[in-house]
Amino acid sequence: MSEQEEPWVGVAPVETLNEMSGLDFLRAIVEGRLPRPPISRALRFHITEVEEGRVVFTGEPHFDFYNPIGSVHGGYAATLLDSCMACAVQTTQPAGRGYTTVEIKINFVRPLTETTGEVLAEGRIIHVGRTLATAEGRLTDRAGRLYAHGTTTCAILAVPNGSRG
Amino acid sequence: MSEQEEPWVGVAPVETLNEMSGLDFLRAIVEGRLPRPPISRALRFHITEVEEGRVVFTGEPHFDFYNPIGSVHGGYAATLLDSCMACAVQTTQPAGRGYTTVEIKINFVRPLTETTGEVLAEGRIIHVGRTLATAEGRLTDRAGRLYAHGTTTCAILAVPNGSRG
Amino acid sequence: MSEQEEPWVGVAPVETLNEMSGLDFLRAIVEGRLPRPPISRALRFHITEVEEGRVVFTGEPHFDFYNPIGSVHGGYAATLLDSCMACAVQTTQPAGRGYTTVEIKINFVRPLTETTGEVLAEGRIIHVGRTLATAEGRLTDRAGRLYAHGTTTCAILAVPNGSRG
Amino acid sequence: MSEQEEPWVGVAPVETLNEMSGLDFLRAIVEGRLPRPPISRALRFHITEVEEGRVVFTGEPHFDFYNPIGSVHGGYAATLLDSCMACAVQTTQPAGRGYTTVEIKINFVRPLTETTGEVLAEGRIIHVGRTLATAEGRLTDRAGRLYAHGTTTCAILAVPNGSRG
Repeated sequence: MSEQEEPWVGVAPVETLNEMSGLDFLRAIVEGRLPRPPISRALRFHITEVEEGRVVFTGEPHFDFYNPIGSVHGGYAATLLDSCMACAVQTTQPAGRGYTTVEIKINFVRPLTETTGEVLAEGRIIHVGRTLATAEGRLTDRAGRLYAHGTTTCAILAVPNGSRG
Repeated sequence: MSEQEEPWVGVAPVETLNEMSGLDFLRAIVEGRLPRPPISRALRFHITEVEEGRVVFTGEPHFDFYNPIGSVHGGYAATLLDSCMACAVQTTQPAGRGYTTVEIKINFVRPLTETTGEVLAEGRIIHVGRTLATAEGRLTDRAGRLYAHGTTTCAILAVPNGSRG
Repeated sequence: MSEQEEPWVGVAPVETLNEMSGLDFLRAIVEGRLPRPPISRALRFHITEVEEGRVVFTGEPHFDFYNPIGSVHGGYAATLLDSCMACAVQTTQPAGRGYTTVEIKINFVRPLTETTGEVLAEGRIIHVGRTLATAEGRLTDRAGRLYAHGTTTCAILAVPNGSRG
Repeated sequence: MSEQEEPWVGVAPVETLNEMSGLDFLRAIVEGRLPRPPISRALRFHITEVEEGRVVFTGEPHFDFYNPIGSVHGGYAATLLDSCMACAVQTTQPAGRGYTTVEIKINFVRPLTETTGEVLAEGRIIHVGRTLATAEGRLTDRAGRLYAHGTTTCAILAVPNGSRG
């Protein structure tokens, strides 16, 4: 994506979200038929690959995301991993079902810096049940070096998104 | 802080970081004698309280941090909680010692939205050992309602920050 | 409890479990009106205090629970903490509702050995929602020294225990 | 192993532990040249496969390990997963280095019962650094169905086991 060109950013109406399967919804974001979420502009990452049970996000760690001790804040890796893991769960859900993230667990194994270059956050489902699902994620650079990894638990909602109460 | 006025953002030189105790370093950020870290501008939160073993960050969830399913991305809460927990550990360390976050575990108990208003992320140490330390954090709104909570493990480095290799 | 006397061990019928509130059910175990669960004999620990939102288990680390590297296996602390945290959640549930543990996260901060003496695992609820609840736990010795701590997420089942499918 | 025959249970002297690589030490337990640890008798599981970066434990869930709500206590799965994950890390360490488990995170996805039959806990390393290592584990039955999974963080000690202070 060119840096000159402002991407389409927003949140699709909840009706759109609910009438599409998770897989179709995410593919529509990848293909630009639905807007990218606002957080992906604030932290400059985007969804690049979607298939059933697996989603990849990419980003480029920047000085703008540094913590006070001289590296990229852990929240950056947490955000990319949360995204790819939750979306991996979302790809397994049919239209009309919602989901929400219950918890994430992230391990940081190497510091990210502004010289790391592009990173890939790949999420894969571990177990998808009727009411709960789990997934795992890995954050690597282009050389395949691991920077962070994690797991998540998501709750599957029998009701559509936005009608939870 | 007025939105008109740009805060002082940056990363202090590693020498400054290493010659101050963790408590003094964080107090200097609160009092504006050292710059706020870049991530706190990207996600618009700031450190507001620092004492030994306890640190508070505040922020205001904004539409700019939304995920595709209509609420603030979990990475926002993760970032604030990571910040307050790691900094609670940092307050216990003397000058000349570094630290790094090993892992975080975050539970999301209520969605944050653009109408939540100001939130407080309060971190407190649980256990500080010679080489490892743990802390916990809670993210609440002004009415004390809990939105997320977590724990962290940090590694204490006998060597100064930036000289790890 | 005298070591000479074999405690009443077993699992109450699921009907009994479902017709009592969580608080009443656990109190009946403490008071010996219902059997202690089998695991509490295998690892020699027992429930000693129950109130709404807070449960305490006690045990005594023994050589019989050692790992190959010369201390009590982490599974011992995990079992006591899982017990006190899940039961803290159980105390908040009325009759006719089931629950199950979704995940636990345990930090080990000091090794347990056969000379540690009696330990207390205290669980307290953090957040109890309609379908999910979280709790935290601390494992300490009689002098209050911390050995391990953790958190849990439990799922609250609108259906009784044993009728989940 | 015949139930009639009592296995060799104990803890090898710390000198033995320190003069062997992790891989050799664990293989010696598998092959009966060193004693099985006491916990493996209390919860009736044993180590069955060891290679660099991967370890398998097997066990058979029994009524003796039940919780009060009618299934095997989560501490059982936590113990097997902690074992296989920590030992996977241990296989990567040369003689003369110690290690200790910092934390475990376990997700329970299906209940274990006395009719589940034999289960396998397989641990694999994720990342091994100079001072910290991470691993993951899966607990499955003979049909490959997943019951629980987890991750761990271990600390690598530059000093031998038992000389930590």
